[in-house]
Amino acid sequence: MTGERKYAEAGVDIAARSRFAKSLPGILARARRPEVLSDAGPFSGLFRLGDRYRDPVLAASADGIGTKVKLQLAAGRLDLCGPDIIGHSVNDILVCGAEPLFFLDYIAGNGLSNEQKQALVEGVANACAEVGCALLGGETADMPDVYLPGEFDLAGFIVGVVERDAIIDGTKIRPGDVLIGLPSSGLHTNGFSLARRALDVANGEPAEETRRRLEERPPELGGLTLGEALLATHRPYAREVRPVIDRVHGMAHITGGGYRENVPRVLPEGVTAVIDTRAWEVPGIFRLIAERGRVSAEEMYEVFNMGIGLVLMVGAEDAEGVLAAVPGAVRIGEIREWTGRPVELVGLEQGQRG
Amino acid sequence: MTGERKYAEAGVDIAARSRFAKSLPGILARARRPEVLSDAGPFSGLFRLGDRYRDPVLAASADGIGTKVKLQLAAGRLDLCGPDIIGHSVNDILVCGAEPLFFLDYIAGNGLSNEQKQALVEGVANACAEVGCALLGGETADMPDVYLPGEFDLAGFIVGVVERDAIIDGTKIRPGDVLIGLPSSGLHTNGFSLARRALDVANGEPAEETRRRLEERPPELGGLTLGEALLATHRPYAREVRPVIDRVHGMAHITGGGYRENVPRVLPEGVTAVIDTRAWEVPGIFRLIAERGRVSAEEMYEVFNMGIGLVLMVGAEDAEGVLAAVPGAVRIGEIREWTGRPVELVGLEQGQRG
Repeated sequence: MTGERKYAEAGVDIAARSRFAKSLPGILARARRPEVLSDAGPFSGLFRLGDRYRDPVLAASADGIGTKVKLQLAAGRLDLCGPDIIGHSVNDILVCGAEPLFFLDYIAGNGLSNEQKQALVEGVANACAEVGCALLGGETADMPDVYLPGEFDLAGFIVGVVERDAIIDGTKIRPGDVLIGLPSSGLHTNGFSLARRALDVANGEPAEETRRRLEERPPELGGLTLGEALLATHRPYAREVRPVIDRVHGMAHITGGGYRENVPRVLPEGVTAVIDTRAWEVPGIFRLIAERGRVSAEEMYEVFNMGIGLVLMVGAEDAEGVLAAVPGAVRIGEIREWTGRPVELVGLEQGQRG
Repeated sequence: MTGERKYAEAGVDIAARSRFAKSLPGILARARRPEVLSDAGPFSGLFRLGDRYRDPVLAASADGIGTKVKLQLAAGRLDLCGPDIIGHSVNDILVCGAEPLFFLDYIAGNGLSNEQKQALVEGVANACAEVGCALLGGETADMPDVYLPGEFDLAGFIVGVVERDAIIDGTKIRPGDVLIGLPSSGLHTNGFSLARRALDVANGEPAEETRRRLEERPPELGGLTLGEALLATHRPYAREVRPVIDRVHGMAHITGGGYRENVPRVLPEGVTAVIDTRAWEVPGIFRLIAERGRVSAEEMYEVFNMGIGLVLMVGAEDAEGVLAAVPGAVRIGEIREWTGRPVELVGLEQGQRG
């Protein structure tokens, strides 16, 4: 009327943002711990560490969930983003022995509705509560002209704590140690750019067509739809591993970069991890991606977890006990003297079981 | 040759990512503190808090720098993103009295080169070192099909510490307290979606044209180019405020949402902050945005900091001492008994000085 430009026209609606902000305290309350003095404000969250640790070491990790967000968006399942980022984050600090304390999210996109933002934050809060982690705050940003229309990204930051003398850093790993794999729930949060192209889903087609393609039930998936297999959330391993953690020499979280990138991170000098890829059944979703995308076995193991989301290194004397104590755990290999490279994948040429 | 698809074709080049990863330890080493046991690995950063705090409270905040990234990208100044995110983050935890311990970054985009990623992380590391904060890790993600081609986003996560009995939470604020403003260096990291449109820069035109427009020297900017004024980095206030922090009853960091959103966050019940907008000179860049974008004064103060980046609330008896101790500090108003709304901006109708 007066020729004045409202900020909403520049792609950012401050009133809508304010309504969203008002909904946050109720959501954050779902994931609170007694140590939380203040979440979501005034400018930072406050977490009272207090004096219950002797020599506390904080473990921190930043993560995203990659282009899996595109599938969740197309499927209308933004509630699944939280479990994914939390599963990923909890595992990243678990590998050094830390237990989660608190988490913060960062959500940015182009044109997300308040309902979508709320579904995202609620998913994060519920997943935090599930693993006993406080949701201490976060940031939601409207970023017209940076994200593609309707798209968004979710990042997360976790802080955990471990007593200094309980840090697991791989220095106890020695030849003869047994490698124990814990099953993944699917792709977890890595390799989705390749998977989307290999399966031609969320690959540029309209959202309605994406939803239709996610309804397919390929025989490889044993009754699951493609959507169910792809959207299975990143499994957090803290609960299963905690009871045996004193017997663990090292842990590798199999994320982007697969076995060759993630296993060496925790190995000391002078040893090689020999993994027998025939030791477990590769889930159908990976076989489907390899087949439809004509991806070599070698590349598959460099991009995907192939069915094992966490690898434990334990002394040979403890292997049976750990295998019995952790549901689904499988012996997948061993540590040997240095063979010339940090990781050897055995059995790739012959194809995998299943 | 064999019909196999390389992951690089799906928009993610694992070899390039691996080369980038190898460059990180050298960069992170620039921003290390004695408490850092491990940065960037194996899966999380480790920071030894130890026993030097009596009752430590961790303050954490997640932030982005909005669409300012578009201008930095067009201007080829990705080294400035780090100072911006660090300035913003340090101030967000400063307002409760916390000093920074460590920081993690999240960088995601579509088609960023290794050189661009390195410039970003180096900027973050240098800015961390500048404020005495460790860079404990981060995540860099390639997100084809989520970001617009060539675009990226940067988010950051800071953790600081404050003794429980030193937390500043605004409960000491009372009628008669004086509001002291500290000058901003410009827009800091908020309001860039509006600013880009109002000034018609990084507003859809080709990058070369953006660079040309940033070279303009409007008379309002007193000799500065538009680029220099817009790209000035978010000023961190920790150094200036630390010596007077015992005398501060509350602090507001003026970010997105301006005065009306940020000042009330720290106010107790029953008081109103009365700010005289004629008390300081509004920098030319804001006058230029208001004029070219035909933005009302009221909206300007709801979006931008208008020249004041941090507001301190101090007792009347301490005001002169604090004003003398903090360079550039200006008396901008006072706390009164509740007037019916939490913030009153005085002098808007008559226009601002300068």
